[in-house]
Amino acid sequence: MKSLTLYTQFYIMKFGIKRNKKVNKVEEKNISQAVIRRLPRYYRYLGTLLDEGVERISSGDLSKRMNVTASQIRQDLNNFGGFGQQGYGYNVKYLHAEIAKILGLDVTHNFVIIGAGKLGQALANSISFEKRGFILKGLFDINPSLEGFTVRGLPIRSMDSLSEFIEKNNIEIAVLTIPKSMAPEVAEMLVDTGIKGIWNFAHIDLKLPETVLVENVHLSDSLMSLSYRIGHSGEGVLDE
Amino acid sequence: MKSLTLYTQFYIMKFGIKRNKKVNKVEEKNISQAVIRRLPRYYRYLGTLLDEGVERISSGDLSKRMNVTASQIRQDLNNFGGFGQQGYGYNVKYLHAEIAKILGLDVTHNFVIIGAGKLGQALANSISFEKRGFILKGLFDINPSLEGFTVRGLPIRSMDSLSEFIEKNNIEIAVLTIPKSMAPEVAEMLVDTGIKGIWNFAHIDLKLPETVLVENVHLSDSLMSLSYRIGHSGEGVLDE
Repeated sequence: MKSLTLYTQFYIMKFGIKRNKKVNKVEEKNISQAVIRRLPRYYRYLGTLLDEGVERISSGDLSKRMNVTASQIRQDLNNFGGFGQQGYGYNVKYLHAEIAKILGLDVTHNFVIIGAGKLGQALANSISFEKRGFILKGLFDINPSLEGFTVRGLPIRSMDSLSEFIEKNNIEIAVLTIPKSMAPEVAEMLVDTGIKGIWNFAHIDLKLPETVLVENVHLSDSLMSLSYRIGHSGEGVLDE
Repeated sequence: MKSLTLYTQFYIMKFGIKRNKKVNKVEEKNISQAVIRRLPRYYRYLGTLLDEGVERISSGDLSKRMNVTASQIRQDLNNFGGFGQQGYGYNVKYLHAEIAKILGLDVTHNFVIIGAGKLGQALANSISFEKRGFILKGLFDINPSLEGFTVRGLPIRSMDSLSEFIEKNNIEIAVLTIPKSMAPEVAEMLVDTGIKGIWNFAHIDLKLPETVLVENVHLSDSLMSLSYRIGHSGEGVLDE
């Protein structure tokens, strides 16, 4: 891994940064988690600018809107080959489309929801996911009495049919909206189906092989962070 | 601010680190955002250990469970005065209770939910918030046809009564589960009520005075991060 990085740096030094697929691919190797976390936010702001009919924007103006420094914006976007031109700024439509590609939003991703309770239903009804290419294909619940009910036109299915359904429908992502006590078992079942990612709302960290990517939404953790900040407001907080 | 920090360091050097409220209070001044984000996770793991009847744990064992380095654990907890003893490890019950205090979970926080759709209802029905001292006092919705319906025994109220309700019921936190188009206006209304924090699920960053703390849960951003990672799996990712 280390030698690959050195090679990359050498490659860029020697051949300059060109925006061709090969170089981009190499450059993306070492994107930090923090930058990845910020990308969707860029995508969101650029989407708003597009809606407003803005064609180009300087890193300075974007920085004011997003409340981050212009240098951070330039640094972040340089990770992916820049996109900006000196004196012109960023082409909003182009940058929006490029970030969409980086985030994998230029292709569709089929997903299922496991746990058809209130939260599962709320997520099933979100149109914004669909707009970004995430297509809900099925809902599952462990409670057999829910079988036959539908959410947004989709029937709630029994867990017995999960594996077969995932394989047949080319499902990439499973959303877990089940109690934490059941989550590890269901997650293991999912690993065997060859699923690529789990969007985990259960309040537990899943221990899975690296082949399955897990993105956690721990709502209680978020609420506790808010509570901490309320209790300590007025005190200094260091930026990340 | 800077002089205060220097004073703190001097104070600790001169008088040693004693676990009295004053020193703790001073020491907490410069906790980084990243540490604050990690605290709820410590709290969660310690809660599980408590449930399992574990009385004490070394930073090494805790590190294996939490999948972070022992030195990060020691560093993180040192921010709050340590809690650990050489050769003994951490007293689980004590550490759990201390972190609860730091997070403000030793007192109750009244909250309201604004937006009584599926997501609002899902959050209203979460028992885990209540267990941590977050007490749902009211639900509000802009849709007048919902008035009179109840969620978990609480009536859905009209927005007209929001300000008065917040003042009379000592509400600290408002949860925003409304469309992003309505969120800025409602948030401004909330600022005038003197609310302390907003837990924002609307897919927009709110621009509010610093007196009101905002904790965002941008679900689409989280899903897009997962999508990025699926599209780039197998490539190296730097830790934060």
